[in-house]
Amino acid sequence: MKIYDIEGFPNPVRVRIALAEKGATDKVEFVPVDVMGGEHRTEAFKAKNPDAVVPCLELADGTYISQCNAITEYIDGHFEGPLLTGNTPKERAQISMMNLRAENGLLNAVAAYFHYATPGLGPDLETYQCAEWGNKQKEVAGQTMAYLDSVLADNDFLAGSEFSVADITAFAGLAFADFAKVEIPDSFANLNAWRARVAARPSIAG
Amino acid sequence: MKIYDIEGFPNPVRVRIALAEKGATDKVEFVPVDVMGGEHRTEAFKAKNPDAVVPCLELADGTYISQCNAITEYIDGHFEGPLLTGNTPKERAQISMMNLRAENGLLNAVAAYFHYATPGLGPDLETYQCAEWGNKQKEVAGQTMAYLDSVLADNDFLAGSEFSVADITAFAGLAFADFAKVEIPDSFANLNAWRARVAARPSIAG
Repeated sequence: MKIYDIEGFPNPVRVRIALAEKGATDKVEFVPVDVMGGEHRTEAFKAKNPDAVVPCLELADGTYISQCNAITEYIDGHFEGPLLTGNTPKERAQISMMNLRAENGLLNAVAAYFHYATPGLGPDLETYQCAEWGNKQKEVAGQTMAYLDSVLADNDFLAGSEFSVADITAFAGLAFADFAKVEIPDSFANLNAWRARVAARPSIAG
Repeated sequence: MKIYDIEGFPNPVRVRIALAEKGATDKVEFVPVDVMGGEHRTEAFKAKNPDAVVPCLELADGTYISQCNAITEYIDGHFEGPLLTGNTPKERAQISMMNLRAENGLLNAVAAYFHYATPGLGPDLETYQCAEWGNKQKEVAGQTMAYLDSVLADNDFLAGSEFSVADITAFAGLAFADFAKVEIPDSFANLNAWRARVAARPSIAG
């Protein structure tokens, strides 16, 4: 199994945390993609992933899986270890719901701000900009932080009492917010305490 | 089990097709939400679904599930009948990947065009507009149709040989495209033939 990615970028981070939670990091070969050089937009890479983004998973039989949620779901189903996407239909639905809220409302919202309303990765890569939309999404990110803070008033983790992909996605979203200089207010005490707990997990702290 | 929705809207359509495929339509109580009157934005509704959109599922124990993908996954796991989200980790990942491509690239792209770049549901409901972004997303929808057409050159359905949630999402996306006057070119022969096959399924044709 191979993962085409670039270390430290938000969605690759999600996949790497999921692998570490499953104790499976050493079962995967990481193939670096030169995103800053535009390799992800070459025809050779788009033959693997027509979305032209990292990460992309290649199974042993040559099947390519992209879309970060599909990759983390595969990792969760394929490897032993604690379940990150739930077990019963209800657990799975609750985790999926919170994961999508964290993804759309936080990580993707920060990404839209970074890529469309700031210089982002520079003029060679940011070939489309739309500051109005990007700045609106920055507002959405702030609203989502407030929502997640409220959820964490009553729960240890975003989808209840167990750590899940929803926590991974939100954690990566906050890291991206720091990088993109989107403020994470100190007043979100539940969110900041949760973030410190997640950061201390062996899958992240090492 | 209750579903809060409005018949005929794109995401409610996805849930209703999934229920019909599982033969479970009569096991659910539909509760109409007055979207045109703004009911989905009231505090009473946001207590059920803070995303302030339909559909929203209420389980027998009072748990609320929103985010359309989470709802269809719950329906697939909870009810008997043909699997719509796959069985093995590989099948599940392939279906999830194609479903997300159809959702982000087609259904959500058409939605962004409709709500942000056209009068949409009217001035009372369209309180945020961004024509530049909406028009860009219309382009994305066209590109995604071309991509889906290419996938269907080699496959009966979007994620392989079996009908899945990916087909439901793309089908609802094309219906939304018609409604929003986003052209579906006749030249996409594979896509149009697949659409006719899907439209003839008992879950849709009745």
